[in-house]
Amino acid sequence: MSIGEESLKKHYEWNGKIEMVARCRLDSKEDLSLAYTPGVAAACLKIKEDPDEVYRLTRRSNLVAVITDGSAVLGLGDIGHIAGMPVMEGKCALLKEFGGVDAIPLCVSTKDVDEFVNTVYRISDSFGGINLEDISAPRCFEIEAKLREKCRIPVFHDDQHGTAVVVCAALINACKLTSKDMKNIKVAVSGAGAAGTAIAKMLYSFGVHDITMCDIDGILTKSRVFRSKSEEELANMTNPLQTEGTIKDAVKGADVFIGVSAPNVLSADMVKSMNKDSIVFAMANPTPEIMPSEAYAAGAAIVGTGRSDFDNQINNVLAFPGIFKGALMCRASDINDEMKIAAAKAIANMIDEGELSRTNIVPSALDKCAADAVAKAVANAARLSGVARV
Amino acid sequence: MSIGEESLKKHYEWNGKIEMVARCRLDSKEDLSLAYTPGVAAACLKIKEDPDEVYRLTRRSNLVAVITDGSAVLGLGDIGHIAGMPVMEGKCALLKEFGGVDAIPLCVSTKDVDEFVNTVYRISDSFGGINLEDISAPRCFEIEAKLREKCRIPVFHDDQHGTAVVVCAALINACKLTSKDMKNIKVAVSGAGAAGTAIAKMLYSFGVHDITMCDIDGILTKSRVFRSKSEEELANMTNPLQTEGTIKDAVKGADVFIGVSAPNVLSADMVKSMNKDSIVFAMANPTPEIMPSEAYAAGAAIVGTGRSDFDNQINNVLAFPGIFKGALMCRASDINDEMKIAAAKAIANMIDEGELSRTNIVPSALDKCAADAVAKAVANAARLSGVARV
Repeated sequence: MSIGEESLKKHYEWNGKIEMVARCRLDSKEDLSLAYTPGVAAACLKIKEDPDEVYRLTRRSNLVAVITDGSAVLGLGDIGHIAGMPVMEGKCALLKEFGGVDAIPLCVSTKDVDEFVNTVYRISDSFGGINLEDISAPRCFEIEAKLREKCRIPVFHDDQHGTAVVVCAALINACKLTSKDMKNIKVAVSGAGAAGTAIAKMLYSFGVHDITMCDIDGILTKSRVFRSKSEEELANMTNPLQTEGTIKDAVKGADVFIGVSAPNVLSADMVKSMNKDSIVFAMANPTPEIMPSEAYAAGAAIVGTGRSDFDNQINNVLAFPGIFKGALMCRASDINDEMKIAAAKAIANMIDEGELSRTNIVPSALDKCAADAVAKAVANAARLSGVARV
Repeated sequence: MSIGEESLKKHYEWNGKIEMVARCRLDSKEDLSLAYTPGVAAACLKIKEDPDEVYRLTRRSNLVAVITDGSAVLGLGDIGHIAGMPVMEGKCALLKEFGGVDAIPLCVSTKDVDEFVNTVYRISDSFGGINLEDISAPRCFEIEAKLREKCRIPVFHDDQHGTAVVVCAALINACKLTSKDMKNIKVAVSGAGAAGTAIAKMLYSFGVHDITMCDIDGILTKSRVFRSKSEEELANMTNPLQTEGTIKDAVKGADVFIGVSAPNVLSADMVKSMNKDSIVFAMANPTPEIMPSEAYAAGAAIVGTGRSDFDNQINNVLAFPGIFKGALMCRASDINDEMKIAAAKAIANMIDEGELSRTNIVPSALDKCAADAVAKAVANAARLSGVARV
């Protein structure tokens, strides 16, 4: 039985990967009068008086909505908002199991940016945070920006920032091992969608200045006819020498290759053309841009992928449960750059000096201690950057 | 400590009356690859192929959203959408504990009918059903009608229909005990809001023709200047003799008084003016339209209230968990009149002939068997009326 067949069978058995349970007893008349009428009126009036009390009197303090429009589900593309729900439920289960965060899955039946934004905004006071999921680029950038502007709670697009955080964590440790200084490295990124864009922006925050982005049309330059505002922004930020050509040209002499694109994009010859002690993060799923054995044979010093069956698995689950846990802990109004940087550093620091090696640059995706370490760092960064409310 | 103070203290301890838990294990790499990537893609593609499979592959089959705009919370009026959340959470906990139905609380930050409708419609494919809660009349009628029209899932406003179902159940048994025929009784209803309107409509379904509605302006007649379309409809349906006056005039010679209005609206003298073997349902909360002892002293044969500390508690919790359970069981596309009537009859029938008495006309609100009996009857009625999908 393939993994897909087995998973489908399991999904039929589970009949939902999450469920809601009561935290209060409802067995006696007294129970009912305390949890429901008439007693509950006192909790309502307390919140009417001070809306922030809703965080102490209801589950909002620990609740995240995982929301999609189904337009870019996994690598499957636009499969419709309903078909995205198994992924949303999976994400909710991971948030709870890894971060202790309650989460509910929602799908929105529109592809119109403003209609999506207004729908989500109108229900946003029900939650402590919002995780956007599997929304296609460039719509995801506009949606995230508008929702962050409108909502009083943190709005986070994990496909962008969760990926960027874990890539940066892995890169911090990879650079340490190869004695590269992030300020001087040359990075080639294959894939300029949600993840690629966020990775480039976050690398900038870490002082990386020489980044070249590639998509199916080749290297991104300022002279290209742009398909979106976000692509134009990215072009203005990257490719300092305005190199033209394909991924082959971008990779030549690079210290780091980061792939969030498609299978087999990187050849052994291209790895050979990279700088000494090259770092290759080939994260296309399930088939990476290059197989680790091939990359190592071509001279790569450190190889990471998105897969659990190879070393150095670069997996978002290391980041998002802890990021939300931290943001909720301090009732942050936003998840800002400072918090994301703190999360990346916390993940990198989880590997002790003695444990750090070329095949061990990030913690295991199954390490349930990651969320606590990340949460602590994220809450601290939120306080220092002024977005924490408690 | 008052019940309100005790409830508030409990709410601070609970820190939320519900929480979400995972139904799948996430401890090993294999677990992750089955519940999340890459395995989950198979479940997504199955739903893309046949959207109905979402009911078998996710929790949608058992999930209800409890949604408010905070405009008519309990008897507190418009306290804002956020302050309504403790009631929504309480309802969710009751749905789970009494009906085994998963539920999530949502508040919508708009008072505009169409904006509310569009917001809820856009997320409705996330749920198996929608329970509208604590929305003020007459907006609630328009919102419910528009959502029932647009959504592919059942939309139910419990403040209207849940109340009507339990009132009708109680009235079936009260009429049996007093040998009154529902087709011949004269009924006075105090309160022409959400509950009063739904009660009048449902009584009609049971063959009651002589219904007089009263609100703060007195008896509803066709010559009144109407405040809403729903009020006009109600006026055209009720008061066959076009009696004018106040509640005092409406009650004179009536067999049944139904109060969903305000404390102390019904005096002992008014009860004395009613027909022989009068039935009084005084359901204003927490202080009823008349206290049971006073109503009995004035000659009432059967008295019911909304309170748990008196006999004959007419409480929605007897109805809504089973109604949703039944509707979800057969994947009903609507909760129609046939299903509501079946629910009322099922509740009435729960009291065995031998147990039925003037102080025992409805099951205890704590009777967790009610939901199963109601669900069975509701699913059956859904199948017979053609709205069941499995």
